Amino acid sequence: MSAGLLVVGSIALDSVATPFGQTADAPGGSAVFFSAAGAILHPVQVVGVVGTDFPLDALKTLEARGVDLSGVERAPGESFRWKAKYSYDLSSRETLETRLGVFADFRPKLPPRFQDSRYVFLGNIDPELQLGVLDQVKSPELVACDTMNYWIHSKRDVLLELLRHTDILMVNDSEARELSGDWNIYRAARWILGHGPRMTVLKQGEHGALLVSSDATFKVPAYPLQEVFDPTGAGDAFAGGFMAYLAATDDLSPGNLRRAMVYGAAMGSFAVEKFGIQGLAGVTLADVRARVRVFKDLVHFEVDEERGA
Amino acid sequence: MSAGLLVVGSIALDSVATPFGQTADAPGGSAVFFSAAGAILHPVQVVGVVGTDFPLDALKTLEARGVDLSGVERAPGESFRWKAKYSYDLSSRETLETRLGVFADFRPKLPPRFQDSRYVFLGNIDPELQLGVLDQVKSPELVACDTMNYWIHSKRDVLLELLRHTDILMVNDSEARELSGDWNIYRAARWILGHGPRMTVLKQGEHGALLVSSDATFKVPAYPLQEVFDPTGAGDAFAGGFMAYLAATDDLSPGNLRRAMVYGAAMGSFAVEKFGIQGLAGVTLADVRARVRVFKDLVHFEVDEERGA
Repeated sequence: MSAGLLVVGSIALDSVATPFGQTADAPGGSAVFFSAAGAILHPVQVVGVVGTDFPLDALKTLEARGVDLSGVERAPGESFRWKAKYSYDLSSRETLETRLGVFADFRPKLPPRFQDSRYVFLGNIDPELQLGVLDQVKSPELVACDTMNYWIHSKRDVLLELLRHTDILMVNDSEARELSGDWNIYRAARWILGHGPRMTVLKQGEHGALLVSSDATFKVPAYPLQEVFDPTGAGDAFAGGFMAYLAATDDLSPGNLRRAMVYGAAMGSFAVEKFGIQGLAGVTLADVRARVRVFKDLVHFEVDEERGA
Repeated sequence: MSAGLLVVGSIALDSVATPFGQTADAPGGSAVFFSAAGAILHPVQVVGVVGTDFPLDALKTLEARGVDLSGVERAPGESFRWKAKYSYDLSSRETLETRLGVFADFRPKLPPRFQDSRYVFLGNIDPELQLGVLDQVKSPELVACDTMNYWIHSKRDVLLELLRHTDILMVNDSEARELSGDWNIYRAARWILGHGPRMTVLKQGEHGALLVSSDATFKVPAYPLQEVFDPTGAGDAFAGGFMAYLAATDDLSPGNLRRAMVYGAAMGSFAVEKFGIQGLAGVTLADVRARVRVFKDLVHFEVDEERGA
């Protein structure tokens, strides 16, 4: 079985400096990382906006992988640009510049065939726009959304309204702390579950990700990597793998949600191995499954109920 | 089967302030946390020193749980004291005072029956003293040691000599980074394996612990806790659980080493739930096994080789 998968989010030109090199105006943004990862598992429908300066080649590459860009508007003006620099150990980054460009006036409009999507990911954009997208989807089966500290502080009421229509809030653990006002991530997760979502996925960077629902907690560590080049987009690639796995299997059982977490973590690991979306280029389903098996071994142990300890 | 388990380390009076309260001159130190946790699984032999001011009740409580203190010297003078304050979210701490007292002139001497110990844990003390203890053990089966940044910088050569006689280096990930000069923990682990130990256990606080050998990597997350009161001693409680599980089962197979990691993580979780060693008081083997089962569920997923994704 299979079901339509929709993402709305930023389509950006990223200029990123890490200790290993830098990029200038490379394709990025939440919708791009999400669909570059997700398309490995399932077709993705993208809603977003680019300026007249956006390189068409980058979009064509995504289309060739099964990404439907008919919801991407081309507006007069400059594309959204983001410039950042990472610390020597990649553990922190500084945003040097954010230029909204055509994103400032973006009002997402879904092509008719996108309105039947059953799996919806609302990437980190203004919660009013996220709600606006959701209004256009006829009967979604699963709605997941991301947000960030900026919206948590500037549009808290709208965000809380969005949460009431969201099945899964997928944020960094620092964002969960900000939103809930609680530094303990398990209490922060409970707070989230009390405000609408029936699950929350907390992204923890080099420490993996956590799924919390009312009756289960599941942890997937990060994939063991000896070389990390660019952490940009890892969270969105995770979201793409997670949502695309669920759409491809059309199965929301607890066991399948756990597998989706592992597919997400595998996608995040490919994303960080090269600059921008290059790490996801050329990755096959077999590559992903090989990493899923490594994850299985990474955490596997047998309980010893009958032994002498 | 069962084998002697020896620990050398500090026996301290800790004064710790957290957002939830504070203690003054409470029993602590690496050897105390190690044995308070380890004794739940297996008898522990302790080598250390206390001053004439150390409360005998605290030691009697340990003895009642199967800790052999005949290697603890009572020297004229003050006990080792450590004073620290944690940040509001317990993520960092500041050491306010360290008074070595009788620890300054400590020269560990093993009672004859301790010299047959087969499982040896060298807690975080001067690497010269760690080597001095090891010299007195006749034929150890497994030697694990801890260290800290202070020794990495001030006694690097002695520490490297110690590593050549160590099976498992068990340190915080920040210490592994300092020692190896590499911020990537998997490369840091490889560096360690190239300098003597055949395994390394990297303790990652709220993110669990990692076991790396030449042919396997195993990750155990931290136990999901909604209430953490005092992180002091979690790493030593982990070490106590890990080593005591190995001594109790006398089994160094890869599968049993993984289980030992989980028992260690369970002990660390009990340690942080109350101040000092109180979190470990009253914990039974059944309590520990219940947490081991929770760990199993926390990371469990089935691989889907045959499915359609």
